[in-house]
Amino acid sequence: MIFTDLLNGKTADKPPVWIMRQAGRYLPEYRELRKSANNFIDFCLNPEKACEVTLQPIRRYDFDASIIFSDILLVPHAIGREVKFIPGTGPILTKLNSVDELSLPDFDEFQNFLKPVADAIKLTRGKLPEQTALIGFSGAPWTLMTYITEGAGSRDFNFARDWLWSKPKESEKLLHHLAEYVVSFLTLQANAGANVLMLFDSWAGAVPASQRGRVITSLHKKIIADLRSSGIHLPIISFPKGLSEGLKEYSEEVDIQALALDHYVDRRWAAENLRSDIVLQGNLDPLCLVSGGDVMRREVNEILEIFASRRHIFNLGHGIVPQTPPEHVTELLALIRA
Amino acid sequence: MIFTDLLNGKTADKPPVWIMRQAGRYLPEYRELRKSANNFIDFCLNPEKACEVTLQPIRRYDFDASIIFSDILLVPHAIGREVKFIPGTGPILTKLNSVDELSLPDFDEFQNFLKPVADAIKLTRGKLPEQTALIGFSGAPWTLMTYITEGAGSRDFNFARDWLWSKPKESEKLLHHLAEYVVSFLTLQANAGANVLMLFDSWAGAVPASQRGRVITSLHKKIIADLRSSGIHLPIISFPKGLSEGLKEYSEEVDIQALALDHYVDRRWAAENLRSDIVLQGNLDPLCLVSGGDVMRREVNEILEIFASRRHIFNLGHGIVPQTPPEHVTELLALIRA
Repeated sequence: MIFTDLLNGKTADKPPVWIMRQAGRYLPEYRELRKSANNFIDFCLNPEKACEVTLQPIRRYDFDASIIFSDILLVPHAIGREVKFIPGTGPILTKLNSVDELSLPDFDEFQNFLKPVADAIKLTRGKLPEQTALIGFSGAPWTLMTYITEGAGSRDFNFARDWLWSKPKESEKLLHHLAEYVVSFLTLQANAGANVLMLFDSWAGAVPASQRGRVITSLHKKIIADLRSSGIHLPIISFPKGLSEGLKEYSEEVDIQALALDHYVDRRWAAENLRSDIVLQGNLDPLCLVSGGDVMRREVNEILEIFASRRHIFNLGHGIVPQTPPEHVTELLALIRA
Repeated sequence: MIFTDLLNGKTADKPPVWIMRQAGRYLPEYRELRKSANNFIDFCLNPEKACEVTLQPIRRYDFDASIIFSDILLVPHAIGREVKFIPGTGPILTKLNSVDELSLPDFDEFQNFLKPVADAIKLTRGKLPEQTALIGFSGAPWTLMTYITEGAGSRDFNFARDWLWSKPKESEKLLHHLAEYVVSFLTLQANAGANVLMLFDSWAGAVPASQRGRVITSLHKKIIADLRSSGIHLPIISFPKGLSEGLKEYSEEVDIQALALDHYVDRRWAAENLRSDIVLQGNLDPLCLVSGGDVMRREVNEILEIFASRRHIFNLGHGIVPQTPPEHVTELLALIRA
């Protein structure tokens, strides 16, 4: 597997490529299958459907990696913070005001609830081409905490940040609980046959810089240490989105194999400043892929050129957006694989 | 004036201090006066009311600087993109889909429309204590473009970023038009008696890193060059919010006197990496001020300590939020001035 070989230290002639949210609404075959379930959570927790959706972009584009179709909000849902997806609005959760309101499941119950994800991984691994890596993933504690404390997505994360400042001990407790469930969920996925694990801290950029150490770095270290000490040695890709200049310190402190870069990071700065033995993944703006044409070709060529000197996985800086013309993905792959 | 002296190169024993949005909803006297006008734009364009609101926090706290009460959306409004503030929702504008839809005023009309801001500055400068600086300001072209092309505030800025990729020439045209109005507006404020000018690029962080040069840096340079060449030599504070690791290059290329830092910038990194002859302003998280207490004292002391080696203006990393207890501001000032 060229993808895991690269993560494990080998070099590659051309960067392997996959796309965040590659199984998603930009594909007509996804939109068709999505109609078969009312509820998004039920859709994610149906192993046959999750498997089929995961395979769709592989059949169409032969990406070097697939990512199991699932959602970072399955963890909050599984620990009793009911998640509802409201079309046009996004996810809504019962807002948590204090850790005392939590009523947490034990780890057996938790893993049992998420067993359909493990089943989907088993099914998918059995059907994927041998050379295609399968990525299992989880949201990271802070990002999960933002949804749990905001009760929804957010623009300013005022409730979550208020927890950090006004309830430092409760925040610590919540984050550590979440870290344990994240380890449990990633373990479940590793045991089911995932080849790579990915940690999404999608709202890392919303942590005040002076709190990054305790809210991001130390928790990621703990999650990885716990996985390693329980014998899980799969390569790990981390995506602390929005950490920007904080990525340097992060990459030096956290023992990951690859770091995903959003499109707001200066790629030249990243290539020069981030620990040279990790793979960098990214970082085309999803809206540049929507635009396509010359603008995209120039941008892709710049990415390939700047990262040519290090181990690199081509990807977007964030998930592909629904309005992306599928033929632009075909063109993108031709450019990268030329 | 200790504030302008610092900006002009002198050092100060203690950092001068002011707070973004210091005239605002956290003050009961502001909320009271705000009731006297239905429409937020009318409120901003009433010189007596704008003056009174600007003076309120100075009376209460004796900040080292005041900022004229106004709004960055006055410029879009003045160039024909009607702005409405919907309580609980935020600003709504007529969404621009193409530069051909613009019907722009000439600069005389534009300045005439914004004359109440100049009048407010004259009035306020006459009533302020002599040692208190008065800051005039404008939104920067990119930030204005986000509101104009999104038709509202945004979380992901997908429309504005789509303009950058899909309509590079139209974007360039729009940004350059906006830059000219920004120069005109800042000139108006300088001529009315402002002591300092500030440029808010509040959504600079939403520009893909590879486009920062043309969308942020080159336009700020042009605005400043135009001001200087027309004889305006007031010190300039720039706030390209969210530029993160891009701040280094920005600070080296743009001839500003001070750079405002949000709370997402690692302050130690900033103190060590940003051009040493500029003043750094910031960077307490507004939510840390809401929390107050020991957590705030530790954070404030860290800020004072880290920036002690350079010229520094104490401020928040973003505007003060309405739920801030006014007595926390009193406590903050006591700490800084101790």
